[in-house]
Amino acid sequence: MPQAPTSGGKEIDVINGEMFIGSRSLSGTSGEARAVNPATGETLDPVYRGATRAELDEACRLAWEAFDPYRSLEPETRARFLETIAQNILDIGDALIERAMAETGLPRARLEGERGRTVGQLRLFAQVVRDGRYLDLRIDPAMPERQPLPRPDLRLRKIPLGPVAVFGASNFPLAFSVAGGDTASALAAGCPVVVKAHSAHLGTSELVGRAVQAAVRTSGLPEGVFSLLFDTGRDIGQGLVADPRIKAVGFTGSRGGGTALMKIAQARPEPIPVYAEMSSINPVILFPGALAERGEKIAHGFITSLLMGAGQFCTSPGLILAIESDKLDEFIAGAGNALQSASAATMLTPGIHQAYEAGVEALRSHTAVQTIARGQAGQGYQGVPGLFSTTAEAFLADRKLAEEVFGSASLVVRCRDEAELASVLDSLEGQLTAALHITEADHEDARKLIPVLERKVGRILVNGFGTGVEVAHAMVHGGPYPSTADGRSTSVGTMAIDRFLRPVCYQDMPEALLPPELRDSSPYDRLLDGKTVLGA
Amino acid sequence: MPQAPTSGGKEIDVINGEMFIGSRSLSGTSGEARAVNPATGETLDPVYRGATRAELDEACRLAWEAFDPYRSLEPETRARFLETIAQNILDIGDALIERAMAETGLPRARLEGERGRTVGQLRLFAQVVRDGRYLDLRIDPAMPERQPLPRPDLRLRKIPLGPVAVFGASNFPLAFSVAGGDTASALAAGCPVVVKAHSAHLGTSELVGRAVQAAVRTSGLPEGVFSLLFDTGRDIGQGLVADPRIKAVGFTGSRGGGTALMKIAQARPEPIPVYAEMSSINPVILFPGALAERGEKIAHGFITSLLMGAGQFCTSPGLILAIESDKLDEFIAGAGNALQSASAATMLTPGIHQAYEAGVEALRSHTAVQTIARGQAGQGYQGVPGLFSTTAEAFLADRKLAEEVFGSASLVVRCRDEAELASVLDSLEGQLTAALHITEADHEDARKLIPVLERKVGRILVNGFGTGVEVAHAMVHGGPYPSTADGRSTSVGTMAIDRFLRPVCYQDMPEALLPPELRDSSPYDRLLDGKTVLGA
Repeated sequence: MPQAPTSGGKEIDVINGEMFIGSRSLSGTSGEARAVNPATGETLDPVYRGATRAELDEACRLAWEAFDPYRSLEPETRARFLETIAQNILDIGDALIERAMAETGLPRARLEGERGRTVGQLRLFAQVVRDGRYLDLRIDPAMPERQPLPRPDLRLRKIPLGPVAVFGASNFPLAFSVAGGDTASALAAGCPVVVKAHSAHLGTSELVGRAVQAAVRTSGLPEGVFSLLFDTGRDIGQGLVADPRIKAVGFTGSRGGGTALMKIAQARPEPIPVYAEMSSINPVILFPGALAERGEKIAHGFITSLLMGAGQFCTSPGLILAIESDKLDEFIAGAGNALQSASAATMLTPGIHQAYEAGVEALRSHTAVQTIARGQAGQGYQGVPGLFSTTAEAFLADRKLAEEVFGSASLVVRCRDEAELASVLDSLEGQLTAALHITEADHEDARKLIPVLERKVGRILVNGFGTGVEVAHAMVHGGPYPSTADGRSTSVGTMAIDRFLRPVCYQDMPEALLPPELRDSSPYDRLLDGKTVLGA
Repeated sequence: MPQAPTSGGKEIDVINGEMFIGSRSLSGTSGEARAVNPATGETLDPVYRGATRAELDEACRLAWEAFDPYRSLEPETRARFLETIAQNILDIGDALIERAMAETGLPRARLEGERGRTVGQLRLFAQVVRDGRYLDLRIDPAMPERQPLPRPDLRLRKIPLGPVAVFGASNFPLAFSVAGGDTASALAAGCPVVVKAHSAHLGTSELVGRAVQAAVRTSGLPEGVFSLLFDTGRDIGQGLVADPRIKAVGFTGSRGGGTALMKIAQARPEPIPVYAEMSSINPVILFPGALAERGEKIAHGFITSLLMGAGQFCTSPGLILAIESDKLDEFIAGAGNALQSASAATMLTPGIHQAYEAGVEALRSHTAVQTIARGQAGQGYQGVPGLFSTTAEAFLADRKLAEEVFGSASLVVRCRDEAELASVLDSLEGQLTAALHITEADHEDARKLIPVLERKVGRILVNGFGTGVEVAHAMVHGGPYPSTADGRSTSVGTMAIDRFLRPVCYQDMPEALLPPELRDSSPYDRLLDGKTVLGA
């Protein structure tokens, strides 16, 4: 007889409406919410109830108590903990994929891929913990004979900021939710995490939360390392950011949501950093050489990227810029044809669908905007893809045209010449990505735009599209405000750990009291008197 | 006949009331201010007049125009520019020291030392620019054969944030003013700088500003790389932080001043980081073993540190914590005796003197505070050193006792036992430094406090005092709020450059378009596929 998957003797594929406060599993008592299947409109069991202020307080208290012991663990223990979370998520099995499909309308292949990414990034951060490079170790040995004054022995390492609040994202129910990127990097840094689940995928959150809780238990960690709270309004989420024991916030969502959290964080007696990823239209610039050589291929790639995940990616190509030409007309016609046959696609939530429809309607009815093509009609919460065009002049005259329409809608901006195209770029707010489509013949023109793009975006791609964010060492998924609240960091890739760290210097501290990684026997890469020394 | 020092054909030791907007030297027209010699109360020539809003706008426009060309310079050009500033400051000669003495009341030896530090940190940042480690280069090469999807080529470097506003500090007229730490690290990062001069040392600011302007000119840089503005009120300083072309702020001063700038920065359409260093009382913890072994020596070191620079250091030892004992009584008596014979010392400004007197009076008249000793009476703007004591119970009951008194005043807090001492530490706000005085016999007790201290401070010292901040790779001069606005960075040492940088990722960019440091031929240390590779 097949057994239910277990971890530490407890079943982990159970969905019964529970949240997790340290080692406790409990149903909330504040308000009531249910997930909705956006494909069918069906309300899903079970009922979820929100946390009370007392439960929030308890989660924060436990996180604070766990902070010092958790950050002091052997690196290997922390690395294995991350790997155990990954394994537990896999062990949930198909129950996780099925629940996520029901709650998000996303297809199986996408969610299986997303699970792979989620597990992969947990394992990558385990490696980051083992490598110790994130500690940014620096040692300036004493110079007792230096004149006129001796130099003390100075040693620096980075330590975690403290408990972190993570807000699950609607569009990545696994990779940017309960055990997603923010949680993985915060836990890797040594920060306990309190997650506020996204209301769009409550069951998925419960399943993953149970997997993390089980990993805390079987790893023998202090229970407060992880809690997961539901919120049927905004009270718990806002209270979480305001709690004095929370020292940083990770958020992916709307600009309104992100800026509201920033305000709360800044109004605290002790302000804290908010890493909010908020909105981006991701300009794609088509150069003449590339359009002439392979306009049709680029059009195909563009529409594929635009339709992916019903366009519900932060890096979806929402803006195409090019100089007027016959080749641009051919590109637009080709892209329009491809889009026309595309199906409508179920969107994540009724609210997201409604916002998409409103955004598309604003474009459609704009006097300076031409509708190039719409996809096939849909039903329920399905979004109908849309491709629109306007002139640079019109785009520059109306800032509303530069606002994100979250979903499979994109706007082609026809520019008279290079100077006008540069003006459009210069008018944009901060973005996550920009893409250049070029051939060698376009290099000179492209080179001129790169400084502008560097100032505007976190990632510049050549001959590709921003969707599909590689989890790697050199990835930047971030960008100047308002694409994120803080362009000095990334939410994807190993550099994401930096956002949860701060430096501490130890001066003339005896070897016996130094943290092991700062002793002369340190096994890690470090800066010794300003020169890199490789670790063991 | 001896010649006046020149740089690029212009005299640089001239004081005539000018500020600098790019390549222009001009007198302001808004309001009127003069420096005051705090030792004599004498008003110093010449008259300084503040910048207008139009002049502020011009400085910011030039800084913005200079940003792309300046950040794109060969590293060697930027490094030599920093070295030229250093040399020009030395070339001003004694005129700089004499003016700084007159404006601050600080003694010659101190100011000559501070000039050495200022020049030294400019030269150190030149080396940082040459080393290229600050770029945090990362390369994840393409994997075209990877299944199920190929990996793109990803390359990351850090780029400067944009023009930086620097506010000169009253207590370091050279090392934290016009060409001080914030300016040096911002210029090293590739950020143009607009300085708002501190009103306490206008002539010193003018001299150093002229030296920087000359370096811009003889280095052939875009003029907007540096401007220096005077402000006779708060309008120009506040307008500078609000200007959309300014992308970060460096400030050293009061908590009120720092938090006001934070509010302005956060209210902008595009919020920007503020690195404000604000206040710190720098707890010093005396352990029983150390008190028994060398209480007298520690008392001597403590009083020396407390009196240094009339106590006008952010790292001055304002709080002594120890467990009640006869040895503590001896320490207090010894420290009191040493303090009693100390002279009053001229403070930087009438305002600082007034605040010091008020702070000392609040301690003196506090019912739970005992005056241990005062120094010799002074006159004018001289501050009389003061040593006070109270109990842990009283300290915990009145948060006012934990407020910084900027100057040579310190409060000894007598604790009943280790637990009470730990409670006092736990009650403190974020601090720049904490010092432990220990012997080997104290290691066990000290070890227990280190996690608490790590959460509270930026630098933990053993058997020393926080005054005298080494400019080095492993230094942290920073700490949790409110010691600084942002504990994730340092204002002293080479890590200070990080605060003015953000990461950008280049995906599949052809070699010809990549920045030189990210090409395969890069001469710098870098992370290749997650492993450190040493540069040439």
